[in-house]
Amino acid sequence: MKHAQNRRPFRRRPPIGSAPGTLAPPDDSTPTSVRLVGYSADAIEQTTIVDSDALAAFRARWPVVWVDVCGFRSMHIIKALGERLGVHPLLLEDAVHLHQRPKVEPDGERLFLIVRTAPGSAPRIDEGATSIATDQVAVYLQPGCLLTIREHQSALFDPVHTRLQVDGAFIRRHGADYLAYAVTDTVVDGFFPVIDDLTDQVHVLEDDVLDPRTHSSGVSIHRARQLVSSLRRTIWPYRETLFALQRDRHGAITEETRVFLRDTLDHSVQLLEAVDHLRDTMTGLMEVHLSLESQRMNEVMKVLTIISTLFMPLGFLAGVYGMNFTNMPELHTTWGYPALLAVMATIAIGMLLWFWRRGWIRASDP
Amino acid sequence: MKHAQNRRPFRRRPPIGSAPGTLAPPDDSTPTSVRLVGYSADAIEQTTIVDSDALAAFRARWPVVWVDVCGFRSMHIIKALGERLGVHPLLLEDAVHLHQRPKVEPDGERLFLIVRTAPGSAPRIDEGATSIATDQVAVYLQPGCLLTIREHQSALFDPVHTRLQVDGAFIRRHGADYLAYAVTDTVVDGFFPVIDDLTDQVHVLEDDVLDPRTHSSGVSIHRARQLVSSLRRTIWPYRETLFALQRDRHGAITEETRVFLRDTLDHSVQLLEAVDHLRDTMTGLMEVHLSLESQRMNEVMKVLTIISTLFMPLGFLAGVYGMNFTNMPELHTTWGYPALLAVMATIAIGMLLWFWRRGWIRASDP
Amino acid sequence: MKHAQNRRPFRRRPPIGSAPGTLAPPDDSTPTSVRLVGYSADAIEQTTIVDSDALAAFRARWPVVWVDVCGFRSMHIIKALGERLGVHPLLLEDAVHLHQRPKVEPDGERLFLIVRTAPGSAPRIDEGATSIATDQVAVYLQPGCLLTIREHQSALFDPVHTRLQVDGAFIRRHGADYLAYAVTDTVVDGFFPVIDDLTDQVHVLEDDVLDPRTHSSGVSIHRARQLVSSLRRTIWPYRETLFALQRDRHGAITEETRVFLRDTLDHSVQLLEAVDHLRDTMTGLMEVHLSLESQRMNEVMKVLTIISTLFMPLGFLAGVYGMNFTNMPELHTTWGYPALLAVMATIAIGMLLWFWRRGWIRASDP
Amino acid sequence: MKHAQNRRPFRRRPPIGSAPGTLAPPDDSTPTSVRLVGYSADAIEQTTIVDSDALAAFRARWPVVWVDVCGFRSMHIIKALGERLGVHPLLLEDAVHLHQRPKVEPDGERLFLIVRTAPGSAPRIDEGATSIATDQVAVYLQPGCLLTIREHQSALFDPVHTRLQVDGAFIRRHGADYLAYAVTDTVVDGFFPVIDDLTDQVHVLEDDVLDPRTHSSGVSIHRARQLVSSLRRTIWPYRETLFALQRDRHGAITEETRVFLRDTLDHSVQLLEAVDHLRDTMTGLMEVHLSLESQRMNEVMKVLTIISTLFMPLGFLAGVYGMNFTNMPELHTTWGYPALLAVMATIAIGMLLWFWRRGWIRASDP
Amino acid sequence: MKHAQNRRPFRRRPPIGSAPGTLAPPDDSTPTSVRLVGYSADAIEQTTIVDSDALAAFRARWPVVWVDVCGFRSMHIIKALGERLGVHPLLLEDAVHLHQRPKVEPDGERLFLIVRTAPGSAPRIDEGATSIATDQVAVYLQPGCLLTIREHQSALFDPVHTRLQVDGAFIRRHGADYLAYAVTDTVVDGFFPVIDDLTDQVHVLEDDVLDPRTHSSGVSIHRARQLVSSLRRTIWPYRETLFALQRDRHGAITEETRVFLRDTLDHSVQLLEAVDHLRDTMTGLMEVHLSLESQRMNEVMKVLTIISTLFMPLGFLAGVYGMNFTNMPELHTTWGYPALLAVMATIAIGMLLWFWRRGWIRASDP
Repeated sequence: MKHAQNRRPFRRRPPIGSAPGTLAPPDDSTPTSVRLVGYSADAIEQTTIVDSDALAAFRARWPVVWVDVCGFRSMHIIKALGERLGVHPLLLEDAVHLHQRPKVEPDGERLFLIVRTAPGSAPRIDEGATSIATDQVAVYLQPGCLLTIREHQSALFDPVHTRLQVDGAFIRRHGADYLAYAVTDTVVDGFFPVIDDLTDQVHVLEDDVLDPRTHSSGVSIHRARQLVSSLRRTIWPYRETLFALQRDRHGAITEETRVFLRDTLDHSVQLLEAVDHLRDTMTGLMEVHLSLESQRMNEVMKVLTIISTLFMPLGFLAGVYGMNFTNMPELHTTWGYPALLAVMATIAIGMLLWFWRRGWIRASDP
Repeated sequence: MKHAQNRRPFRRRPPIGSAPGTLAPPDDSTPTSVRLVGYSADAIEQTTIVDSDALAAFRARWPVVWVDVCGFRSMHIIKALGERLGVHPLLLEDAVHLHQRPKVEPDGERLFLIVRTAPGSAPRIDEGATSIATDQVAVYLQPGCLLTIREHQSALFDPVHTRLQVDGAFIRRHGADYLAYAVTDTVVDGFFPVIDDLTDQVHVLEDDVLDPRTHSSGVSIHRARQLVSSLRRTIWPYRETLFALQRDRHGAITEETRVFLRDTLDHSVQLLEAVDHLRDTMTGLMEVHLSLESQRMNEVMKVLTIISTLFMPLGFLAGVYGMNFTNMPELHTTWGYPALLAVMATIAIGMLLWFWRRGWIRASDP
Repeated sequence: MKHAQNRRPFRRRPPIGSAPGTLAPPDDSTPTSVRLVGYSADAIEQTTIVDSDALAAFRARWPVVWVDVCGFRSMHIIKALGERLGVHPLLLEDAVHLHQRPKVEPDGERLFLIVRTAPGSAPRIDEGATSIATDQVAVYLQPGCLLTIREHQSALFDPVHTRLQVDGAFIRRHGADYLAYAVTDTVVDGFFPVIDDLTDQVHVLEDDVLDPRTHSSGVSIHRARQLVSSLRRTIWPYRETLFALQRDRHGAITEETRVFLRDTLDHSVQLLEAVDHLRDTMTGLMEVHLSLESQRMNEVMKVLTIISTLFMPLGFLAGVYGMNFTNMPELHTTWGYPALLAVMATIAIGMLLWFWRRGWIRASDP
Repeated sequence: MKHAQNRRPFRRRPPIGSAPGTLAPPDDSTPTSVRLVGYSADAIEQTTIVDSDALAAFRARWPVVWVDVCGFRSMHIIKALGERLGVHPLLLEDAVHLHQRPKVEPDGERLFLIVRTAPGSAPRIDEGATSIATDQVAVYLQPGCLLTIREHQSALFDPVHTRLQVDGAFIRRHGADYLAYAVTDTVVDGFFPVIDDLTDQVHVLEDDVLDPRTHSSGVSIHRARQLVSSLRRTIWPYRETLFALQRDRHGAITEETRVFLRDTLDHSVQLLEAVDHLRDTMTGLMEVHLSLESQRMNEVMKVLTIISTLFMPLGFLAGVYGMNFTNMPELHTTWGYPALLAVMATIAIGMLLWFWRRGWIRASDP
Repeated sequence: MKHAQNRRPFRRRPPIGSAPGTLAPPDDSTPTSVRLVGYSADAIEQTTIVDSDALAAFRARWPVVWVDVCGFRSMHIIKALGERLGVHPLLLEDAVHLHQRPKVEPDGERLFLIVRTAPGSAPRIDEGATSIATDQVAVYLQPGCLLTIREHQSALFDPVHTRLQVDGAFIRRHGADYLAYAVTDTVVDGFFPVIDDLTDQVHVLEDDVLDPRTHSSGVSIHRARQLVSSLRRTIWPYRETLFALQRDRHGAITEETRVFLRDTLDHSVQLLEAVDHLRDTMTGLMEVHLSLESQRMNEVMKVLTIISTLFMPLGFLAGVYGMNFTNMPELHTTWGYPALLAVMATIAIGMLLWFWRRGWIRASDP
């Protein structure tokens, strides 16, 4: 039962009927760390803070500031940061309640995004994985400042931090909206290796199912299909979310950054097509598995039928001449026994010819 | 037949062709109780009334009044309340005719909502439940007043009443539209534990179906799928209803409350995704169940074929030498019997090797 | 072949390429009767006419006139009425050509509706019914006058006529558009008892299919599914038609009547959901039926395999000691026979244990 | 292989990369005939021409002219006619390249339509037909002139020509757009008898599949489904095409003719519904066929199991007492033989009772 | 494993998190060749360049210039050309990153298109092909200049080059947008022979599956379905892309060229319909294959059942009279043996009659 409970989709929610906007830290949350990065095209400053007081001074010094929060243990820091940055309490609640689906919510001149990041590697189909574990990242964009909130410490945004280090780099010459794009793009592109890996695994599974020598079961196809479904449910909202960003031309995103976001949208469409292809493959695989099962059964039944059809008449004949009637003249002739053997051989050969004509026996068979 | 009649979807309707707006109390309705709650940010008053006369005075005293009606026995009270609050007769008819689907109907400056509440716990799949029993709540929102009409007395709105007790609470500082949101949100969130529980049950069923040692039947999958379908039909209209509330920007709902309703809309989308996931699981489960059935049949057939193929030729040989021909020289040699036994053993071993090469026998078999 | 011809969907059409607007009475049409009802809030007059001359005087006398035509034998009367009321020839052709699907066509300030009425009772699934027979009603609404054209005399509109008798009744205080609503609502609501009855029948069929003791066939599920499909095809266009009436805000329908029509639209959506539920049930039922068939086959195969596996080795042993070799020393020992019986018993018990371990035999079995 | 090539969908195209607007006559085209019909309400003139010179004079004489072209052998005449009537080269190319799908293309004040005509009779399912052969008709409408181009000479438009002969007929009192409607309507209505006939055939096939005494194969269902699919692909674009004509309110079609076209649109929707019904029937039929196959297998297996279960134990007993042990005291008692026969009868009756209790044998059985 | 890796959909991407706009040449790229074609209606000049310097002079000389780039080895030339022509870095990145899906992106007054070209011939179903290998072509249209970028040297655009050679040809009298159309049309039309060929192959496969004498396996249907799916994924985006070109009326394309593009759009719809037809055929084929498998099993089982049912009772009788009871009076009568043979014959004939009545044996049978 414990196993089943772990698969519940909504296990960490505030009690029903409680006031909205309540921030309840999950029991097993990691320590909260807040990393501040301020930069202009020419300079960059980076620091780690433990309360929200340093933020105002930092924002004053730098044209663009990135507040990168990891871990939910100290919910009061997150709350304080949210208040200072003017995040709506409901959005902040969304940010720390996990199991949100990717979405975008305009909030006046600001933008709030929920994205989910790919795991480091694809789950193993052959170990029975049926769902994919993603982490939630909340992205809050306002002029000159980007706030990102993640549950776990991870190396996810390291490439972005690295690109920020280069003086005069493209990313440094643009505003917080381009930084938001860079973060989103990194998250979306993180799914490519997962799908590559899963595609490899699905092809191995496919080879396994189609191999007539192995006895794969429908269960592994079922499990793999659930895994692909789980991946699809994660990727599916990206297209909608990124398309809404494109279409709504929200003021928080400049025309120039929008061109780049269109690229990210293209990537999300490619991801979705790859997942849909996997899903189609799984559906076809189940069908072909059933077809192969039924073909194997046919083979087995043919062997049984051939054997029975061959030996039942012969056995009957032997039974007849094993009877103990006194008056069975054939028994006492010299040629009776060899003649019967000849008859039996004829019947057997006739049967085999008939089977061969029906295609039940092939030369290559035995 | 009585059983079947209980599953009729439309069993309590007025006669066809009767004038609309007729209020017919169902035969087994519970006594009607009317609870009035009036509040401002600083004070709250609560009372129970038996006729509609007290309402006007109450509304004059308080900026926001909640009229919470339970039970349909005294239809005249409901009718009188409806008239005093200016509810359109057709809407009042909808409110007391059960089996409405969730919907929203704007009525000038007012809003009429039908919602359905989750049962306290999920039905038991293993007890053969095929549908989910929901209660209907009609919500009628007008400036300064909220009317809710339910068939059964229940603890459903107790959390809202509790939140109302706190002086200066967020809910007390807002209008009737926020109260309508609080009620709707409570109703929608009530489905989360039901889906959690159902997910647990489905996973137990899944483990059961995939376990090769148990002999689960397709019937329980069918029943569970019907249960999930029933749940889906209940939740499905919520998204549409809440989306219409969002989109139409009806005057009865302030911008501020609309932000909260968007949250409820998100929840309804999450519920729908969880139910769709359950449905996909059930469909896949039926397929894998059929695949396992066919695999088991294959196993059974292989045993039969191995046994028959092994013993039929041997039995035939024994039959031949059980014949009573006078002229069977082999019978009378000293080595005849042991030689035949040797031939039989050779045939048996040959057969087993052939089966092993085809993969029908494995080392691990038993 | 005659049977098949009766199921042709388009068997009563004018010849292809003939000019449109041709009124061809079907061969087996019932006599035409025309009933005129004129009413105001205070008075009502009712008469039956045989030609169209009386109509003008009647319309002059009463604010609202209902021309209720049944039967197609005297096509000239229908044509004359149509001309006097200014019905477009094509619409009149639609009205008398049966097998139209429900639709609404605005015609300037007028409205033309085709609806189809439910049969008095649901067809019997257990008698192999595969389609539902509906009657067509054409409704032509213009200011102050409603024309309805039906093929058959029926009690369908009797409740409306009854409600019209009451002086000062709601229906009498409104225009022809409310009368059109009353007629349409009566037609739509007529499907509720049919679906109730069909739901009962489907549940009986379901119980039958799921009962392991009965041998239901897939054919009855197929037939029932066709019946449900047929019902769905009839109800499906109602939603679209009534929604178009709502959305297009045609001048012929007042705001007040539109509120009532929304109610009818709700009913059509409820009907459609109930039919879709039936359809899903039928699809699931076919799957579970196939699953049960395959389970039954498994049971049968297991019995066969157990019996064969038990008796084939034993029979072989008996055969061996039935051979007539001279030199079979076992045959002549005193303990040979009982020892062989003991060996046979051991083999049998071993086999049974092996079956039990594989789960093929259960304590509760035979 | 030759057979397969005939089913290629695109076998008569100009070489890839060739300039568009090239008119290549197919090799097996029929001789080109051009029929001119000019008419007003009072008079009509009809002639056959061999080059395009006569056209201009004819158009000057008559308010409406119909140029009806059949056969593609003399492509230069078609080209000359097209040039005189100002048809865009690409549209002319479409007109003579067969295998176009129905579509409408506005060309300034003119309209270009491709329609496909039904064959004279439905293909025979029982002869293995898998697709429907339609002819292409290009319709080019401009003020005062209608050009129709068909590949084959056929009686298709004869009813329209007949209606044109009547002085003062409705069709004569209207413009070229009404003539275009008459032509289109004739083409669309030509599918009704085909679907009627196909429906008959499908019902015969259905009766055949459901009859337990016949051994229909899934192949004929597959073939029939392909035929229905082929018909659906032909009819499907009509709805879209005719709806576009309705919606776009192109100037070439008067309001009055548009009302008639709506009727044709209704017909195309009815056709589509009838085809969809056939398609659903075919899908259900395949399922029920599989269900019946599996039921028949169950019957066969039961017979085998009953026989084996009955005779294997009895045969074993007979085998035991056929053994040649010296020390088998039962053999030498007087009652041994009848006692064994009694035991055998008891076993047989017990088995049969057990089968009967499991429902494997019924009173009505053989 | 190596095999599986080759099927990864996204194997040549820049590292995740790297700055966008990075041009990384694939390892196995072919040498870069750049072909310049400049033309007016009267003259044409053609040359091959190795750096981008010659481009400016060329563009000055000719009203329309086509820059046709093949091969990715010298990425710096492509980059230089892109810069000179003002291509956005992201678009240039798209052009050289393979595995893009067809799309159109407006870039101010310019248009960027990705198309994928058909392979020279359809992959062989009977060699187990499961996907189609397409080449990517990037098309960049700006006033007076067309840039095309392809990975591989191929004869793909040779027909266009040939048409350009003709002085005063239609293509020469139009702008770069018509050239872009010619290129796109050539690419789209290249799929026609592939689908023709695949249709032939599918029909051969179909004949194979439906032939009762061959033992086709579900695996080849599965493989072919994957191949068709792969083709569909390639063709699918064309419709959308070409429709967007039509709808958006981008300034880079003149009205005249748009008419031609509509023709290309029609072709893409035809392609899609042909592929969808193939897909439906494959789905139906799998079903009918399963139906045939089950039918074959039925045949096999019937043979087994007939043989067993025939010989088991006879064998039992023979066994009874093979028993060694002393007191079996029948054994010692003169008529015992022939009488038993007669009884056996009667039983056998009765059985055969029963089988014949059940339809298990037919006159035409073996």
